[in-house]
Amino acid sequence: MNKTILAGMTWKEAEERMREARAVILPLGSFEQHGYHMSLNTDNIVGEYVAGVLAERTGCVALPVLPYGQVWSAKDFPATISLRERTFIEVVKDIVTSLERKGVRNVILFASHWGNAAPAKIAARELLDESGYANVYYLSYMDLKKHGKDVMETELWNGSGFHAAEIETSIVLAICPESVDMEKAVCEYPQAPGDVNIRPVPWITFCESGIFGDATKATAQKGRRFLERWIGDLAQLIENNIC
Amino acid sequence: MNKTILAGMTWKEAEERMREARAVILPLGSFEQHGYHMSLNTDNIVGEYVAGVLAERTGCVALPVLPYGQVWSAKDFPATISLRERTFIEVVKDIVTSLERKGVRNVILFASHWGNAAPAKIAARELLDESGYANVYYLSYMDLKKHGKDVMETELWNGSGFHAAEIETSIVLAICPESVDMEKAVCEYPQAPGDVNIRPVPWITFCESGIFGDATKATAQKGRRFLERWIGDLAQLIENNIC
Amino acid sequence: MNKTILAGMTWKEAEERMREARAVILPLGSFEQHGYHMSLNTDNIVGEYVAGVLAERTGCVALPVLPYGQVWSAKDFPATISLRERTFIEVVKDIVTSLERKGVRNVILFASHWGNAAPAKIAARELLDESGYANVYYLSYMDLKKHGKDVMETELWNGSGFHAAEIETSIVLAICPESVDMEKAVCEYPQAPGDVNIRPVPWITFCESGIFGDATKATAQKGRRFLERWIGDLAQLIENNIC
Amino acid sequence: MNKTILAGMTWKEAEERMREARAVILPLGSFEQHGYHMSLNTDNIVGEYVAGVLAERTGCVALPVLPYGQVWSAKDFPATISLRERTFIEVVKDIVTSLERKGVRNVILFASHWGNAAPAKIAARELLDESGYANVYYLSYMDLKKHGKDVMETELWNGSGFHAAEIETSIVLAICPESVDMEKAVCEYPQAPGDVNIRPVPWITFCESGIFGDATKATAQKGRRFLERWIGDLAQLIENNIC
Amino acid sequence: MNKTILAGMTWKEAEERMREARAVILPLGSFEQHGYHMSLNTDNIVGEYVAGVLAERTGCVALPVLPYGQVWSAKDFPATISLRERTFIEVVKDIVTSLERKGVRNVILFASHWGNAAPAKIAARELLDESGYANVYYLSYMDLKKHGKDVMETELWNGSGFHAAEIETSIVLAICPESVDMEKAVCEYPQAPGDVNIRPVPWITFCESGIFGDATKATAQKGRRFLERWIGDLAQLIENNIC
Amino acid sequence: MNKTILAGMTWKEAEERMREARAVILPLGSFEQHGYHMSLNTDNIVGEYVAGVLAERTGCVALPVLPYGQVWSAKDFPATISLRERTFIEVVKDIVTSLERKGVRNVILFASHWGNAAPAKIAARELLDESGYANVYYLSYMDLKKHGKDVMETELWNGSGFHAAEIETSIVLAICPESVDMEKAVCEYPQAPGDVNIRPVPWITFCESGIFGDATKATAQKGRRFLERWIGDLAQLIENNIC
Repeated sequence: MNKTILAGMTWKEAEERMREARAVILPLGSFEQHGYHMSLNTDNIVGEYVAGVLAERTGCVALPVLPYGQVWSAKDFPATISLRERTFIEVVKDIVTSLERKGVRNVILFASHWGNAAPAKIAARELLDESGYANVYYLSYMDLKKHGKDVMETELWNGSGFHAAEIETSIVLAICPESVDMEKAVCEYPQAPGDVNIRPVPWITFCESGIFGDATKATAQKGRRFLERWIGDLAQLIENNIC
Repeated sequence: MNKTILAGMTWKEAEERMREARAVILPLGSFEQHGYHMSLNTDNIVGEYVAGVLAERTGCVALPVLPYGQVWSAKDFPATISLRERTFIEVVKDIVTSLERKGVRNVILFASHWGNAAPAKIAARELLDESGYANVYYLSYMDLKKHGKDVMETELWNGSGFHAAEIETSIVLAICPESVDMEKAVCEYPQAPGDVNIRPVPWITFCESGIFGDATKATAQKGRRFLERWIGDLAQLIENNIC
Repeated sequence: MNKTILAGMTWKEAEERMREARAVILPLGSFEQHGYHMSLNTDNIVGEYVAGVLAERTGCVALPVLPYGQVWSAKDFPATISLRERTFIEVVKDIVTSLERKGVRNVILFASHWGNAAPAKIAARELLDESGYANVYYLSYMDLKKHGKDVMETELWNGSGFHAAEIETSIVLAICPESVDMEKAVCEYPQAPGDVNIRPVPWITFCESGIFGDATKATAQKGRRFLERWIGDLAQLIENNIC
Repeated sequence: MNKTILAGMTWKEAEERMREARAVILPLGSFEQHGYHMSLNTDNIVGEYVAGVLAERTGCVALPVLPYGQVWSAKDFPATISLRERTFIEVVKDIVTSLERKGVRNVILFASHWGNAAPAKIAARELLDESGYANVYYLSYMDLKKHGKDVMETELWNGSGFHAAEIETSIVLAICPESVDMEKAVCEYPQAPGDVNIRPVPWITFCESGIFGDATKATAQKGRRFLERWIGDLAQLIENNIC
Repeated sequence: MNKTILAGMTWKEAEERMREARAVILPLGSFEQHGYHMSLNTDNIVGEYVAGVLAERTGCVALPVLPYGQVWSAKDFPATISLRERTFIEVVKDIVTSLERKGVRNVILFASHWGNAAPAKIAARELLDESGYANVYYLSYMDLKKHGKDVMETELWNGSGFHAAEIETSIVLAICPESVDMEKAVCEYPQAPGDVNIRPVPWITFCESGIFGDATKATAQKGRRFLERWIGDLAQLIENNIC
Repeated sequence: MNKTILAGMTWKEAEERMREARAVILPLGSFEQHGYHMSLNTDNIVGEYVAGVLAERTGCVALPVLPYGQVWSAKDFPATISLRERTFIEVVKDIVTSLERKGVRNVILFASHWGNAAPAKIAARELLDESGYANVYYLSYMDLKKHGKDVMETELWNGSGFHAAEIETSIVLAICPESVDMEKAVCEYPQAPGDVNIRPVPWITFCESGIFGDATKATAQKGRRFLERWIGDLAQLIENNIC
């Protein structure tokens, strides 16, 4: 029996492991467009992978990824699925509440999809306010500037955008190359309307491929280096703060 | 590219396949105790498997399983997670609404966990009443009596219970033997309190292992025979009625 | 003073009776079409009658019937009224909560309309989960196969349908003949579309009279025999399990 | 067939009558204490009676009374049942929505219980705002000062209170004498705390019998005279304004 | 430091004053048309003024006015803003809950806009029922008949209407003359449709200026006299009942 | 008549101005602690001031500030008031919906309190999704790094915190000096727990004064310079994008 992946355990095994484990990690993914070259499952692949590695390094256990997330910006792309903000929060709260009633030591909400980070934080606040659960953590998403330093060769879009571009593609090349088709990778720095930061503007109105940056520069090597830093940081955060 | 599993596609590929496909199948699983011998992921394994086979046979496409479901009866077992009825309905409605806005031909809600069947039906009704979506189907769960005839050797518990027993175990032996440990399989026909059908009685108050029946009699062979009948029936239902 | 019907009591009388009584029965009816020959009030008539007899036999007290229910399938027939599932659940929860705050021994939700049975069960679960009320029972609806044996002469529609047909008509002939007009009774075994069990299909799209079976074979005598068995079973359930 | 009481009709009969009728009247009652001498069903008895007479006089049809209402002030008396304000509004909206979808000419919400008047008005407003139904009326409750002139001999409590006292008792004596026991009738002008009008103060904290006034002065004769004026006014309002 | 207006205090100062003060007053205003001659801010001006004077006279402290209210009747006039009934109740409950968690002695909801009075009362009831806060008061709005005696020269509209007419205009002339332009004041006694009291009828459908009465007769002198009586009564109510 | 402040207008004046104006600005403030030296009203003062200046420069009109906001982090400080996230969103949506029904050209949600920025954005998204209002903008809060360059002399707390410190104090010194008492200004760079960014941690658990930085270095001169840059930027954003 793998000692970190709850999906592979019986309830008896999980009961024991949940009691011992530093925390239960819930990866929060999405079913969202990731350009012409990566699958709709990208955030779920990354979420399960990172949660699994983190669990092993820090003595945690990991739940299956929630594969549907809050995906407002990309929601109008074909095949992309989005939960409303309130629905997403309620699902997360129900899952955590189930765990708390069994007596876990801590819960970590790990958003492998950017759009889940804000509502996961709101869920954690409401769980504290309404039920007194003070042991619910949310891990903020990857910090492209920090972890991408010396790895990333291309520019962030508008100083912060990176969806499905160099780094995300590199990560998937590193952990699940069969779900990337580099021949279809493109470079797109879409021209956003001037009000993109002050009005709700769906990506599909100004972005063609769905990516924000240059996916053609991705390599598995970059992915491994980025992941190492990112996961290293997350593991450190967990070890220093959650017990 | 597999032509039925949406998780493996880019949005461009999925866009085309969703337009052609007879229906998009959404498997609705759960993270629920399945006795001493099967993993918490059982309903998700079965859900993804059956949805995949159905999709291939009937020209549909399948989404990733929703791995958290409405699990009232078993919800107090360790490691079991349950969404409230209303939360579950809202998630299903949000997912279907995302699909409908892209123009799918039909949607099939496939409950691989029994507790999801009733709220999936309510979701379909509300989608019709509130949004006019008349193309949302719900596939009823396995019919143990019908499909188990000549396959099942043991009795149903109280005439209808079968959780994690002979047939479910056989199915998982057939499709994912590594998540069954037959050495831990037991036979338990728990003594339920007299009011079990007229009051909310959590299983944990009267059932030890979490199973209702005899798992020790399970074989992969039985699983294959049962699956063939069950899936055959479901495929027939789809072909005859959904287009 | 009748000792079982709360509607006829003052609050002083009811206070005492509710303290003594084994349970308070809340009949859950509906305002729903019942063919060309029975009134819209049919489920309410049956609900109040059965609740009253049960109360007398088992030392319970009965509330007035809630005359509006969850009636999805028939809701598009003229004059039929339906509460949404969530509304119905909230009404039931509010009524039970009022009772619990006064200290009743038990509450029995008695669905005299089939569509109320499922949401009544959900209400009971939520009352337990949210407020800890473990004394709320739901009596399942009539079992046509069991109680109709040797009484019913005609077939169930599609193996289970019976709305406003032989048995229901017989019951009303037995307890309230003035609300049946046998001259208008018909036999209709409607041809349902093939997807009737896997999609929300309003009855009005395929049924003309609103009945499912043969109402012309109804007699008061059959009604009395069926009622005696059904009520006998319900009384037994109450006496054996609720105290 | 009575031409005004929908409960006694089949759906075919009701379909025709609802099309012809000036309006469908929905009486909104309650299950609430009415002193030592009147039954918990008082508001329901009055509601069905007045709705029936009004329907006859003005060419309307009447639905069964909703026997559970919004009863905040009296809700802590034994056996009294109260719906929360929002629940009550949702039930009323669901019932009206069912009617509107069948094409009624008008709907009249008739509050025979004072506490229902305010939420019925809110329901009517929301039905207009959310669904555009501009044909939903609410009949305000009895005007004791106006209709009681020359009939009432006793004082109103605190200038406006009258619950279960001279007039209400007289009305029930006139229409349903078997649900009044005049030997138990009392006179109570409870001493309310000074903040009764500026803070939520449950009646049970300062009122013993549950009545506000002098029930001993009630007579059937007064009831008939009051009813005649009250119903006459309501009928006039309907005839002048609703068509 | 002014000892009554919380908006002018630091948290340290407010902490002490809230502990000492008899009550925290929350004025509930609106952004609503007030005829051709008064500003949209009228209810907010009156709310802050009256709350401030009351606070000084009775040893209370006052919060800033909530400047958006429940304004159904006037909501279709240009520039008028209305919160839905439920939204308004939730805002009030959240504000009170914040206060209660800090340990205030009492809270007074002061509706300076008529449409807020009913939902403020519902909020107070729900705060008691759901959270046990028994120290939340609601001050009923001005009583034109009582406080206007010997001051008011003109008639109430339909016996009770007074919006933006003689008295309200006089009050604003007394406390904030710069927000009144008497040259634009008019006299309008609109002809309401016969069903105005039994159906939701927006004012804009029958009223031209937005006022109900004669604003041209307003004087600052009348305003001062009215205010003195009104505030005197409110202060008395507070002193006698809230401690 | 001031041509930008709606609170000072009659509905007739506002009607015309709202038709002409580029946008209606709704300032979203809060009632929140701002250290020992600034009033609880600080965000409201800044909100009304900045909205007013922006309106004048860009041809907009401004509504009164909503003085209660979403204040999770500081909500446990005495006298601080917080709306729940969902309540805040609903209030904003109701206000905007009222405006849209009157036909405004655009609406700008201006968060003068940081905690309102995220829910204001969600409100704008929901207004688009649910009602199709594509003309709702949200102005992001001040960018301390950008607008503070060459103005700010002290460090941001933890690289981004600034609550009630040098810049906010300077701003209030510039626009409303009477609500600052510089003698009480302090410098506090609180020591936050290591998990402050990954768990809901109320400020009061680690911050004494409520400020994050050095308020003692504030001057009106700095405030004027910061405001000029900030407002200049906001005005530019409006002029370039909203018409």
